[in-house]
Amino acid sequence: MLIQPGELLGKINSPKDLKSLDQSQLVQLTQELRDYIIDTVSVYGGHFGASLGVVEMTVALHYVFNTPEDQLVWDVGHQAYGHKILTGRRDNFHTNRVYKGLSGFPKRKESEYDTFGVGHSSTSISAALGMAMASQYNDDKEKQHIAVIGDGAMTGGLAFEAMNHAGVSNSNLLIILNDNCMSIDPNVGALKDYLTDITTSHTYNKVRDEVWNVLGKISKFGPNAQEIAAKVETSIKSFLLKQSNLFESLNLRYFGPIDGHDVDHMVHVLKDLKDIPGPKILHCVTVKGKGYELAEKDQTKWHAPGKFDKVTGVIRKKIPEKPEAPKYQEVFGHTMVELAEQNEKIMGITPAMPSGSSMNIMMKAMPERAFDVGIAEQHAVTFSAGLATQGLVPFCNIYSTFMQRAYDQVIHDVCIQNLHVVFCLDRAGFAGADGPTHHGAYDLAYMRCIPNMVVAAPMNESELRNMMYTAQLPREGAFTIRYPRGKGVMPEWRTPLEEIELGKGRKLRDGADMAILTIGHIGNYAVEACEILAEEGMDVAHYDMRFVKPLDEEMLHEIFEQHRHVVTVEDGCLMGGFGSAVVEFMGDHGYAARVKRLGIPDDIIEHGEQAELHKECGFDTQGIVQASRAMLVSMPKVF
Amino acid sequence: MLIQPGELLGKINSPKDLKSLDQSQLVQLTQELRDYIIDTVSVYGGHFGASLGVVEMTVALHYVFNTPEDQLVWDVGHQAYGHKILTGRRDNFHTNRVYKGLSGFPKRKESEYDTFGVGHSSTSISAALGMAMASQYNDDKEKQHIAVIGDGAMTGGLAFEAMNHAGVSNSNLLIILNDNCMSIDPNVGALKDYLTDITTSHTYNKVRDEVWNVLGKISKFGPNAQEIAAKVETSIKSFLLKQSNLFESLNLRYFGPIDGHDVDHMVHVLKDLKDIPGPKILHCVTVKGKGYELAEKDQTKWHAPGKFDKVTGVIRKKIPEKPEAPKYQEVFGHTMVELAEQNEKIMGITPAMPSGSSMNIMMKAMPERAFDVGIAEQHAVTFSAGLATQGLVPFCNIYSTFMQRAYDQVIHDVCIQNLHVVFCLDRAGFAGADGPTHHGAYDLAYMRCIPNMVVAAPMNESELRNMMYTAQLPREGAFTIRYPRGKGVMPEWRTPLEEIELGKGRKLRDGADMAILTIGHIGNYAVEACEILAEEGMDVAHYDMRFVKPLDEEMLHEIFEQHRHVVTVEDGCLMGGFGSAVVEFMGDHGYAARVKRLGIPDDIIEHGEQAELHKECGFDTQGIVQASRAMLVSMPKVF
Repeated sequence: MLIQPGELLGKINSPKDLKSLDQSQLVQLTQELRDYIIDTVSVYGGHFGASLGVVEMTVALHYVFNTPEDQLVWDVGHQAYGHKILTGRRDNFHTNRVYKGLSGFPKRKESEYDTFGVGHSSTSISAALGMAMASQYNDDKEKQHIAVIGDGAMTGGLAFEAMNHAGVSNSNLLIILNDNCMSIDPNVGALKDYLTDITTSHTYNKVRDEVWNVLGKISKFGPNAQEIAAKVETSIKSFLLKQSNLFESLNLRYFGPIDGHDVDHMVHVLKDLKDIPGPKILHCVTVKGKGYELAEKDQTKWHAPGKFDKVTGVIRKKIPEKPEAPKYQEVFGHTMVELAEQNEKIMGITPAMPSGSSMNIMMKAMPERAFDVGIAEQHAVTFSAGLATQGLVPFCNIYSTFMQRAYDQVIHDVCIQNLHVVFCLDRAGFAGADGPTHHGAYDLAYMRCIPNMVVAAPMNESELRNMMYTAQLPREGAFTIRYPRGKGVMPEWRTPLEEIELGKGRKLRDGADMAILTIGHIGNYAVEACEILAEEGMDVAHYDMRFVKPLDEEMLHEIFEQHRHVVTVEDGCLMGGFGSAVVEFMGDHGYAARVKRLGIPDDIIEHGEQAELHKECGFDTQGIVQASRAMLVSMPKVF
Repeated sequence: MLIQPGELLGKINSPKDLKSLDQSQLVQLTQELRDYIIDTVSVYGGHFGASLGVVEMTVALHYVFNTPEDQLVWDVGHQAYGHKILTGRRDNFHTNRVYKGLSGFPKRKESEYDTFGVGHSSTSISAALGMAMASQYNDDKEKQHIAVIGDGAMTGGLAFEAMNHAGVSNSNLLIILNDNCMSIDPNVGALKDYLTDITTSHTYNKVRDEVWNVLGKISKFGPNAQEIAAKVETSIKSFLLKQSNLFESLNLRYFGPIDGHDVDHMVHVLKDLKDIPGPKILHCVTVKGKGYELAEKDQTKWHAPGKFDKVTGVIRKKIPEKPEAPKYQEVFGHTMVELAEQNEKIMGITPAMPSGSSMNIMMKAMPERAFDVGIAEQHAVTFSAGLATQGLVPFCNIYSTFMQRAYDQVIHDVCIQNLHVVFCLDRAGFAGADGPTHHGAYDLAYMRCIPNMVVAAPMNESELRNMMYTAQLPREGAFTIRYPRGKGVMPEWRTPLEEIELGKGRKLRDGADMAILTIGHIGNYAVEACEILAEEGMDVAHYDMRFVKPLDEEMLHEIFEQHRHVVTVEDGCLMGGFGSAVVEFMGDHGYAARVKRLGIPDDIIEHGEQAELHKECGFDTQGIVQASRAMLVSMPKVF
């Protein structure tokens, strides 16, 4: 289905075309751009509310600044649909987030207008400051460097580190604070309260009240007193508003707050700011989902709603013919509550992913025992460590890819101290349409090298529940459970909770010809593969190892004593991951076997459906079949 | 040499004894504690200035609070010597930082007074907040939770993330900001300027000036005008000081600044704060090195001066009998300047380690091309990525252990985008006396699993120089060079700069019986080991592989074709590290060899001299000899 752009938008093939418009046409353009985003996302899916919220900002930025010469960095980047549509990608935009299509985030390889690849939050100020300092070094005083960052992303420590540096630089840096009070879920934390406070001018009002309060007491000074005080008050008003400002404290000149949906005013302000040297911040108040009423009202639901009927607002959902398996995250969410009901020491922690991780189920059921700490993975982990020192059992749920941001905290604050913290890594393996910034490709490798750490992955819902049950039993040290985005395999998933012996795998199938060792959900591919191979006359054993660490050494001895051909399968990086642990074992014990390791190669894998990416990397059912067949056929006797 | 404590200090075996003192005796006690620290560190070495700066604070905290019930968390922890001496460890304190002795940092295993193990910065607020929320959950309203954090550590993003959460908690949390304007080197950044500003009341002064300025204009209102304005001014002064405060913006009640060396006043203030519920911050101004004049004057030198004559202040240095090899960091520092002189695209970045990394050499020689960005590893890396997008070649120098804190930035901002950034990881392998929080044990594992990444380690100074030279040549992608703390092996280290072919190892010695494969500086142990083995009649080949990634596959084929016995040696974790890469290769190519991997086992290795730890882990010269001998003797024919 071809999406028809409006009259103005249809003629804009680059920001150059945009600049040729008269400023009076911009309001119409923003409407057309908004419609185009609604039309496209309703048909093809994707992120929604964030881009609607920055339509006017996007138009104003490209209208005023000399992109791509001027460097525009979008933080996180899921709000950059308008930017993509205006920068030559309109006619391709229906391929957004599709395998081999456009990325859902800015990406350097895709366009010169995408100055910095994003996906994770809070990077934009650091990146733009680097660009600005490069311009300074090159003595380029004209070039502008703009970071657009949300108030949610602003809570990430990286943003603060960058502001601390920016404040003492003399760089041409403009930070645009897109303040919409939302991450995917509503924002939390003191910064949010503060921004609301300055937006509604509470600070200044408080000062004024204070002054007038005093004036009441000094009325004996005569009728002039009030007038004098009013003058004093006015004179310090502008000064006060600046000085009482968090950002001015960090030596960033603060402007705003302004209405981020008034494109005329934005153009006006941005033009002025261009001429003001040094680091500065413009505070824009916007509404996530602006212009689509339902999205304005339920911003979490409409963050990325999937396909929908744009008129009725009904989100299109396939109605399954038979009961479907739940998402792993849902099993996590419900099991958390179940476990917490039994064990009063359990606490839940999520950094800004209540709905994404399903921690919101526990937050609703037991609000005093589940915390959303904001976009702050580092704090989430060290805060969990603090809880653990007091004998509580924190379950810290962080997407695999975001756990990269708390790596030091896992090592330094949890594992060196051997504290009992449970890490649940959602979205492990391929994230799918979100692409390489969001793939949880490295967790098996970067977690298993840490001492005092258990690393487990469930092959199905029941296993996830049992691993969670096992992880909360009294013990020392960290316990990581990683599981993928999306659905499991058990419509009837509420199985009884049972302890799993630590480091014990499961033999799912005996076989004489070779052994397939899997970890986690992709073991289900191997089940199918073994059937196919059996039909071809190959008798293949299948082991679901369950634990990457500790390894089931007894089982591995059995495997290497019986087999000269071994295939390992993981949805994680091949370098240093599960298969690597298996060959370490083989080397340590002097076994000689041919081992074919299947997993994510040493390359950046782009976006696409999970199944497409599994296929690309050769570890879907057919990939396993082919690798196994090739091993047995071409190398029947290696030693 | 036994250090004699003063009269009061000699009787203090726990904070209970301290509390029994009359408040009037505290000044004397602080003097005795300070003397004891000076006496001990001058004889035994260790961190110095930081602990001297918090003597009064330490005494006041233990005097006022009910430790260990109340939870006291020291950020970083190298300032906690006074704390250790007052909490039952005085007579053991001479074993500080010695193998099997006391840790140089607070450590949970060591004392119940050490509530949270530290070493890296900026963790204390998160940890103390976790403890505070646990108390809240347990309905314990009495328990106090105190985080002592320096202004340097406050620039780390983790601290900001924690404050954002603390500000909306209703927890019994007291943050003590120990403001001394120093990290190891002088602090940098906007926050430092801001703290100086509020300490010297510039903000308030500016408001007053503004008011008086207006008054000049309204003098027509008569003689009362000034008086009225003065009253208005006074009335809003306290309010202003609060509202114009960065911390109050984050909803932390702000108190101070107070003199951190006035123990009486500190006791008074802390007692008051005990009764004020909710999250709050006390700003204490201190002088690093307080009470030892030389240390006050040159705070970087006296951060950890080694042993010294406490009367003359002469730092004891062994005078070498013959020219010694330089430290690797010095080779890095000088080579940076040399390379930057040839290549104008090179920039230097360090997060608060100018002297520790020797980046200060370039900062002095080329101030516009070398940046200290503060304690902000995440920002250091993403800022470097920003520079790289503009065609510059950043050398980002971060200690191996601290790079853990920028792991996501390496993956997400550098490697996914295939940007040309050079990472120089100093203090790789065992850090020595700083212990497990500082060991650079995991870098080979966590770096090699990332695509678009080269991982190299030099065996000597010349190799380091050549790797640095090679890394800055035009290319795509990241290039990591990791090298240890301490000296190399080449007194004549200024060798000509030469390109090294990427992924090419060096064969240092032929041998028929077996092969030893090493990576980095510890290869020098293997050189000695081969000599010893040769004397015993064993003919051992030695390969310095240079690169963990890409591996020298040609060389590995040669090795596995010729050898059935292989020993790998690395000063990194065995799980997923260099040896693991070698067995991956072996498995991938169907070679059958017995491989003994030597390196850091899957355990937390405590502090000690590097050589002691190498021995403990069995990869010093004798360890390599024994492992090789055992392999050849006990398993002459495995296959």
